[in-house]
Amino acid sequence: MVKVVLLGAGSLGYHLTQKMLSSSSVDLIQVYNRTIEKISYLSDKIAITDNLNKLKQADIYVLCVSDNAISELSSHLNFPSKLVLHTSGGTSINNLKSNSAKGVLYFPQTFSKDKKVNFNELPICLEASSNESLTVLKKFSKEFSNNIYLINSEQRKVIHLAAVFVNNFVNHLYFNAEQICNKNKVPFEILKPIIKETVKKLKELSPYEAQTGPAKRNDTETINTHKTMLSSLQLEIYTLLTKSIKETYGEKL
Amino acid sequence: MVKVVLLGAGSLGYHLTQKMLSSSSVDLIQVYNRTIEKISYLSDKIAITDNLNKLKQADIYVLCVSDNAISELSSHLNFPSKLVLHTSGGTSINNLKSNSAKGVLYFPQTFSKDKKVNFNELPICLEASSNESLTVLKKFSKEFSNNIYLINSEQRKVIHLAAVFVNNFVNHLYFNAEQICNKNKVPFEILKPIIKETVKKLKELSPYEAQTGPAKRNDTETINTHKTMLSSLQLEIYTLLTKSIKETYGEKL
Repeated sequence: MVKVVLLGAGSLGYHLTQKMLSSSSVDLIQVYNRTIEKISYLSDKIAITDNLNKLKQADIYVLCVSDNAISELSSHLNFPSKLVLHTSGGTSINNLKSNSAKGVLYFPQTFSKDKKVNFNELPICLEASSNESLTVLKKFSKEFSNNIYLINSEQRKVIHLAAVFVNNFVNHLYFNAEQICNKNKVPFEILKPIIKETVKKLKELSPYEAQTGPAKRNDTETINTHKTMLSSLQLEIYTLLTKSIKETYGEKL
Repeated sequence: MVKVVLLGAGSLGYHLTQKMLSSSSVDLIQVYNRTIEKISYLSDKIAITDNLNKLKQADIYVLCVSDNAISELSSHLNFPSKLVLHTSGGTSINNLKSNSAKGVLYFPQTFSKDKKVNFNELPICLEASSNESLTVLKKFSKEFSNNIYLINSEQRKVIHLAAVFVNNFVNHLYFNAEQICNKNKVPFEILKPIIKETVKKLKELSPYEAQTGPAKRNDTETINTHKTMLSSLQLEIYTLLTKSIKETYGEKL
């Protein structure tokens, strides 16, 4: 059974830990975190540590730490015949400074501790420093999902950027819509069906084909009314996205 | 059985026509459109016309026309004891200039002709010029869904604006993400799970709680890398939404 040490206690680290703890094919033997309190809830199940010198011997070390901690943290990992992985979308495999085989296990997904994760069918982007490591990494990642893509560091950076658009920015638009509703005392709930439909449409139409609304049909009257109803930052967002939609559909400004 | 004439041949008009044609409680007796060719596919099923003087006597006239056509078109409708409805989110009930009872039947939803609509459970926003009309309108709208809200013109305008954020603008972000993927030859498909998860999260978390990503955690290095990878309009969008997320979470610029 493959022995794993996980480093980190963020959302992804938390969900990978939970998944591996319930696994019959992966043996999670230790979790490391700089601040031990964040992983103390694990102490009756497995070994925990905040001391890099006390890391156990394992087959795979999985770093679930912030992007800018990857280089420094990995530089302390001296495991010549073992595999050290990071899990970051935006970070090159070359940022791993461990004395070891290297790889990347990236889930283009949004994780929150409070929201359960269904790993089944989740895409996984893999990269490894050698064919041998890739074999180990593939086998390990099947613990999580069979939906595996081989993606190099440059491509992964692109996926991460696109994910910022479809997740972080989309969620921020939901936030603004909720603010608009709250301020005017109409229930945000009423928008849930259109939110779902916007996604469902992608099954049958490309985003280009699915576009509707006042910006696309250049409905200046509605656009001008809307602009009077927004806070200054919302107005900037409205104006820019309207301009971008207009340009996409040929209404050059 | 309530007799209905529908005016218009856009996406909403199309789907309402289909729904009423299959109904056992509503009798769609005629469809009007300025350009007869767009409704000629209906000619073997019901009466069609492009002549406002030839509109039949009905109980309800449903305008599914562009916002700026509502006033002019409705001014030709002289049906004192009947109900004339528009279906626009951003238009006041007072824009109806018919000699008739008046009402609004608004679906906060995105409609495309190529995408089938499930009206069940779809929210419907109703407004009417009198209690009597509201009773007629309520009964009629139950043909489509039981999820009914009484919403005045000011509130409806707000819902329409918020829908622009969660549908039109969100879809445009999908479009940009797809462009980014295509340009760099990675499959947009890989993002579908995160797109779905972004919506699913709203069941359990508010958009404020659900926010993740480099802007929220002020990860300047990733943000700066992303900025080098975008077209000029995408860069504007990235910069503005990043600023807005930062301000939301307390990082004043």
